[in-house]
Formats: sequence, structure tokens, C-alpha cells
Amino acid sequence: MPIAVDTFFLNPDAPGTLQAQVQQMIAEGILSGRFHIGEKLPSSRKLASHLGVSRITVTLAYTELVANDYLTSRGRSGYYVSENAPVPPVYSPRPRAADTVDWTRAIAQRFTGGDTPHKPVGWRDFRYPFIYGQADPTLFDHTNWRHCALRALGQKDFAALTDDYFDRDDPLLVEYIARHTLPRRGISARPEEILITLGAQNALWIAARVLLNHRRRAVIEDPCYPAQRDLLTHAGCQLTPVRVDADGLPPDAIPADTDVIFTSPSHQCPTTATMPLERRRALLAHARDIDALVVEDDYEFEMAFLAAPSPALKSLDEDGRVIYVGSFSKSLFPGLRLGYMVGSEPFIREARALRATMLRHPPGHMQRTTAYFLSLGHYDSQIRRMGAALHDRRAAMEAAISAHGLSIAGRGVYGGSSLWMRAPEGTDSAQLAARLQAQSVFIEPGAPFFAGPERAKRYYRLGYSSIPVARIGDGIARIAEALGQMQADDG
Amino acid sequence: MPIAVDTFFLNPDAPGTLQAQVQQMIAEGILSGRFHIGEKLPSSRKLASHLGVSRITVTLAYTELVANDYLTSRGRSGYYVSENAPVPPVYSPRPRAADTVDWTRAIAQRFTGGDTPHKPVGWRDFRYPFIYGQADPTLFDHTNWRHCALRALGQKDFAALTDDYFDRDDPLLVEYIARHTLPRRGISARPEEILITLGAQNALWIAARVLLNHRRRAVIEDPCYPAQRDLLTHAGCQLTPVRVDADGLPPDAIPADTDVIFTSPSHQCPTTATMPLERRRALLAHARDIDALVVEDDYEFEMAFLAAPSPALKSLDEDGRVIYVGSFSKSLFPGLRLGYMVGSEPFIREARALRATMLRHPPGHMQRTTAYFLSLGHYDSQIRRMGAALHDRRAAMEAAISAHGLSIAGRGVYGGSSLWMRAPEGTDSAQLAARLQAQSVFIEPGAPFFAGPERAKRYYRLGYSSIPVARIGDGIARIAEALGQMQADDG
Repeated sequence: MPIAVDTFFLNPDAPGTLQAQVQQMIAEGILSGRFHIGEKLPSSRKLASHLGVSRITVTLAYTELVANDYLTSRGRSGYYVSENAPVPPVYSPRPRAADTVDWTRAIAQRFTGGDTPHKPVGWRDFRYPFIYGQADPTLFDHTNWRHCALRALGQKDFAALTDDYFDRDDPLLVEYIARHTLPRRGISARPEEILITLGAQNALWIAARVLLNHRRRAVIEDPCYPAQRDLLTHAGCQLTPVRVDADGLPPDAIPADTDVIFTSPSHQCPTTATMPLERRRALLAHARDIDALVVEDDYEFEMAFLAAPSPALKSLDEDGRVIYVGSFSKSLFPGLRLGYMVGSEPFIREARALRATMLRHPPGHMQRTTAYFLSLGHYDSQIRRMGAALHDRRAAMEAAISAHGLSIAGRGVYGGSSLWMRAPEGTDSAQLAARLQAQSVFIEPGAPFFAGPERAKRYYRLGYSSIPVARIGDGIARIAEALGQMQADDG
Repeated sequence: MPIAVDTFFLNPDAPGTLQAQVQQMIAEGILSGRFHIGEKLPSSRKLASHLGVSRITVTLAYTELVANDYLTSRGRSGYYVSENAPVPPVYSPRPRAADTVDWTRAIAQRFTGGDTPHKPVGWRDFRYPFIYGQADPTLFDHTNWRHCALRALGQKDFAALTDDYFDRDDPLLVEYIARHTLPRRGISARPEEILITLGAQNALWIAARVLLNHRRRAVIEDPCYPAQRDLLTHAGCQLTPVRVDADGLPPDAIPADTDVIFTSPSHQCPTTATMPLERRRALLAHARDIDALVVEDDYEFEMAFLAAPSPALKSLDEDGRVIYVGSFSKSLFPGLRLGYMVGSEPFIREARALRATMLRHPPGHMQRTTAYFLSLGHYDSQIRRMGAALHDRRAAMEAAISAHGLSIAGRGVYGGSSLWMRAPEGTDSAQLAARLQAQSVFIEPGAPFFAGPERAKRYYRLGYSSIPVARIGDGIARIAEALGQMQADDG
């Protein structure tokens, strides 16, 4: 592709002759890496006309650049960036002078420094990736996803692809969720009670902004999904972490002045605990007593391959008190960025207005592709296939863990795609993770899940949604070995 | 597709025999529209096992439902929803009892009731759609977009499609923007100074949250993009609308205690005014004097088919004071939901952290598809094709407007895709729009662009990015006719 003529500008305040300025502009484009070896320059006629200089000025500049080996001339076909030109490997424009803006003062609200852990970019190259929540190319139905995406790119769906429609959602997707997905959780909802979001985290974020302010109190589970704690911290509300037990969030520990309870009853994140029916009823009764709302994060209900998933808290809700959050990140893939929330109409109306002002709507193409994938039955097949594979991996995990004498702290009786592990007392799982990384084993340290400042360090999470079953035994053996070495080093 | 067995639940508190409960559950599924005519029910064995009841209970329930014509039996192949079943046209679950939650109290922050106008859902059916900012199927390079999307769905791009990568962006897209797009605006930026957003509005929203709080003052143009005023209202800052003139925002009118100036200098929205170079320098000098930041919305620079676009304000910025916002909504399509912002690293770092907490990242597939479309040169061809078509439409607009004696209030010397119109004094353009809607003419009333409460009512916007050139003359004639009738009615 030739370099577009409209990417050339002369600085009206620059010193030197016009020819020198043109020459320097092109040399800088090459030296910064903006132009690559072999790329074609605009014709002298075009560039001269664009810059408003005479053609001979550009021609002379080009000739000089050829003499200096920045450019080569290929006769009538024009000028090209020379093979010998000093092109750097990456684009790095000349650094500007330091900002005169005082950013410490200019930034009114800070968002950096949260608990959300950064994943190593190269995790797919790990031989033993016990990572959580990423798609496995061997399980994902890539072929049918492509078919659905292609269909959603057809002429018939031009409006669904291209239109700006901030105040509604793809009716096909909403209808499928209402008729087929929510009934699996015992939930009935009309389209006006459903909002499509940019993933479950976006739904939690929206719920926090609509329902909280600095005078209101939110309860979160401890440990919990770190991004959830981050987003509530940013919301500026009063925040009370409540320690979960083997049955999840204990209702009795929720303070009476709580306004909103954030909970993951069906599959507590990260401990995988399932809240029993009796506690669900007690939680709803307690919420009613103190007039609190409940935001139910049901991020992984599809992964129930060992036991039927318990009905959602929302299915027991007679008051309109529960806001239900679902996600396609675990059952399809996280890069899709699609989730949904279900709640009473006055709430969904405000949530929709907030979504409209912050981002208008989730991209139409992602919504329509998902609607096709769901309604053509590919989704159900995919869930079954994932369930079968996760079932085998889970069995391999438990067998290896037991054989090596490691301790499971939470295992998800329904299934799921991770185990919550407890290392021997005194172990820092961040050090364990660092040690294992050198052996191509990826594990997630548990500390970021806990509310600070005194965080339990001995826990870690082992995901099995991305590791082949054949590598599980070896991977667990390496973890056991590393733990053994750490204890030997300490002793 | 058969109805999935896991969408059936028995309410543990329900009265009646198990058989009656099963029967009622299925009848309700049909009566609510959840099950459609012809859909197959689960086998009695499967449903019994799922519900934990005896198989005979389910068989008896099915038999009763056949007797009542809800179901039909097709021998060995099973039970289906009968053709005579009373299925409503849309899914409408049985209404629940009224919420006991007091939503007036429970909602902590309200987002409804803003200025953003709702587009009629059926605008594509209008014969004369003078709508702004939607994609035209006759101009969009649908074929190559599909090719690029398909390539981005390939095995090689599996990670780009599926991965969760909240703390970075697609490197291909960022590199293209840095090397090819920003140089067209005279801007040089490193990848760390660029953030991909879910459209330009999302970028403005993020900038407002990072740079403002209730103690800080923002200046916006009056009139301006209504969603921008809405999002600043929600940010809870001090907000000062400053009336624009024929050259855009006048620097002298900006109060000395302003912290952030939001402006669209190259193509003021909605008046289309272009700020001259001298005023740009004056605006930057004034911003430096009062130590304010400038957020530059450059949403439509690609549509410059009458004159070269003026370099961006950001290209003149030596201080790091300008935050630049670009968009692919106008040059590709708004449903894509992709834009970008460019600013100094300390700002982009906070903006990225805020984006991560609210939505993680824009979907990988949309980023990668766009990167391919740009880097293969399809984007440049598309801009040229759109420019040529908009050039012709613009000429037809001006000719028809002049022939019918209508008044243009702002025309965009560079090009653009809309004209800002002034109706005779005393005209309410909302009434004009309503009258024209009956004749299949869509125009946008101007009042929502103005800051309240006393809004100018005589202005309206005519977009020409979606109307075929052949219909422009007739469409303008109808507007002139309607205006004439309104004046006759008043006189």
C-alpha cells in the first residue's frame, strides 16, 4: 500500500528552506519507523499539490533522499523507502518535550492500583496453564461460531451490524435469553426486564452505579472476584467484606444498615462454594428484613456437569429484590464481552440509560452472532462438550491432587472449572507461582481475592478450563514438588 | 430444536399433586409463549429423571395435555406442542405480584431523562431519511468487511478473538492508528498514549470521569452533541455551556476557573463550524493561561471532501494539554462501537484502568477486523468512495435548498455529512419534524442540542449520509412545503 499523501504535514513554524523541510519530514518518518522498507511514496505531483509547494521542490527533496540512501527510485514506478534505510523495528515517534501539565493535579479521580491481577501475556505458551476463565481452542466450536458470524454479516442483517441503537438490544438475543436461558435458572422475565451488557463485570459496574453512592453500604463476599472489589471501591460507597464459609455468604453476618448485597450463591468466586437452598431462603428473608437489594452473580451456571445447578436466588425472589447477572464469558469466550442483567423494570430503565450514556450499546455484530449460535443449538452442544471434557479433567485433577497429598479448600460440588487450593501454613502462594512460572506452570495466587490489608497468602486457584487432561498429572506433580522444595528451603 | 430438559423446574412450595404440577408447568410454558407450536418436549424418561419424579407421573401429565389439545403425540417420536395450542404471538411470562421494593428509594443515582433524542426504530423505512450518522448500505464496503471479519475469525487469530486482555489493546489496531491515522491529523503518539474505546462517546465519558469531580468546572459548546451534555451532567461537575459562533468556540468566553474544555474544533457538532488556525492557537494559549485541559472531539475528520481537513488542535499542543478523541462510527459504522483517545501517558494510564474496571476491553474481534480493514487499504478506498458520494449529495442538497429558499445556518466548508438549518422565526422544528414524519421525511429537530431551559427551537439538522442523491430534491421540496403550510396555519 502506498503511503497516503494526507499523512504529510509541513509545520508552518519550521525553519529552513521548503526543500529541506520536505526532506526532513520524510527522513523523520523513516527514522521513527512510521514508514517501512519497501513502502511507496506519493508521486511528486501529488505530494507537491497536497503541501502547496512546487513540484520541483519535492523532486529535489526526493533526489537528495535517494543520494542519502533513504529512498530508492524505480524509474517510472516512483520512489520507495530504501532497503538500506535506517528503519527501527518498532514505531517510536521522536519524544516530545516533557508535559507542562501537572498530572498529579489534573487527574481528579484515580483508577489505577486496584487488586485485579495482571495475567502474563504469554500464558498460552505455558505447558501447564492452570489458568481460569479463558477459552480452550480444543473445546470451542470455532467452525459454527464462524458460520453464525458470517450469517450475521449478511445483507439481511446489515441494520443489526451497523445501526446505532443505544436504547434497546438485539431482539433475537433478548428473546432467546428470556425463553431459553433464564428458564434454566427458574427465572421468568419480560424483555423490558433484561439488559445486555459488555460482560458480567460491566453489569456489576452498572448495578453499583445505579444503586450506590457514598452514603450507601455494600456487602461483598471475602474472598471475592478482585475486579468486583475494585469497581465498588471506585463507586465510593461504604464497603463491608463478609467472610464466606463452606456454604457461601452467611446471612447473619450482613450488617443491618446494608443497602446492596453482592453475592455469587451458586458458585462462590473463588472458593466454588454452593449456597444450600435453606441459606438462600434465609439470605432473602434477611435482605427483606433490612430492606437490602441483592445482586446475584451467576457467572458459571452452565458448567454444572457433576450435579444439576441449584435454581438461582432470583427464582425465589417474590419482591423484585434480586438483580441477576449472567455471562457468556465462561461458556463461550471472554473476548466476546457479552453478559446480561435481569431486574425489575424501574431498575433496568436506569441501567439502560447509564449504559447508553457510557457506551451506547454492545456491538450489534457480537449480539447477533451470539443470538444465532444460541438459537441454532450450537450453544447447547458446546456446553455438553465442555461439560464432558471438564468432567474428565476434574477427575484427573482430583486424582493427581490426592496422589500428591495437596489440599483442596473448595471443589464445587456441581462442577465448575477451577479448584480452590490451600497450601501448607506459612506458604506464600505468590512465591509458589513465581517459582512454578520458571517451569512453565501457571497458577493463580489467592491473595488478590481477599480484602486487604491482611490477606491470606496460602491459597491459590487452579483452573482446568485451558489445560489438556494429559498434562494435568505432570502439572500437579510439579506444584507438589515446588511446595516440597519451598518447605525444605524454609526448614 | 427440542425444548431443553433443564428449562423445567418444579416449585418446591407449589400446591397440588406432582402430576398436576407437571401439567401446569407445561401449560404455562405454552400459554406464556415460551414454547412454540411444533416444538418437541423432552422424553418422559428424561423429564422424570430431571425433575426427580416417577416416569408415570410425566406420562400421565402428557396424556392429559394431549387430551386438552396442548400437545400432540407423534407415536414413537414423542410429544410436540400442538398446532391448536393457545400460543400467544410474543413471550409474555405471567406477571408477578408488584415489587415490594421501593424503587424511588432504592435507586441512588438516576440516569434517565437526559437530552439524547430517541431515533424512530423504523427510520430505514422512511423514503427521505435526512438522518445523521448511520451507515449507508450503498456506500459501505460490506464485501471486504466480511472478508476481514472472516480472516479475524481464523485459527491464527483465536487468541485475538477469545482472550480476556483488559490491560492492553489489539497491537495491530493501535499500530495502524499510530502510524497511519494520527499522522493525517498531524499527531504523533506512541502506543502507550493511545487507548481504544467503545466509540467516541465512551472516550468522552472516560475523560470526564478521570478529569472531573463535583468541585471542577467543564466548559461545553452550546449547542453541542446532546449525549456529551448528558454524560457531563452525570459526572456531577460544574458545567458551563458557551455559545459558539461561526468560527466555533470563542476562547474569550471561557471562564478562568475552567478545568476541562470540551470542543469539536474541526467540525463543530451540530453547527459544522470549523475553527480557524488563529483561534485554535488562541484557544490553546487561553487554556495554558488558565491551566485547563482540552478534550478535542474530532469525530468526522475523514469526511473532508471539499477541503483538506485542518490539522487537529492536538497537533499544535506542546504541553500535553489536549486529549484527542477519534471515532470509526462515521467512517465505518456506529454499530461497530470503536473509537480511540490519545493523551499523555499519566492520563491514558488512568483512563485504561477505568475502562478495565467498567468493561475490561472492547471485543477483540471488532478490533482485529478493523485492523485488517484499515491495513489492507479497504478503509482508504471506502473513505474515497464515501467522499465522492457525499460530494454529490452535498451539491444536490445546496441546489435544492437554494431553489426552495430554505436557510442554511452552518454548512461545513470542509465537507461533512450534515447541514445545520434555520427555519423562519417562530417555527418549532419539533412540530416540523412531526409533520414531515407523516410524509416519510425524517429530519432532526435542533432543540436537544442546546443547553436548557430556554432552547432555540427553529434550528434543525439535515444529514445526507443515508439518503440517495436522487431523493434529495423531493425531500427538500417536502420540507419547504411543510414549512410553508406551518406559516400559513399560523398566519
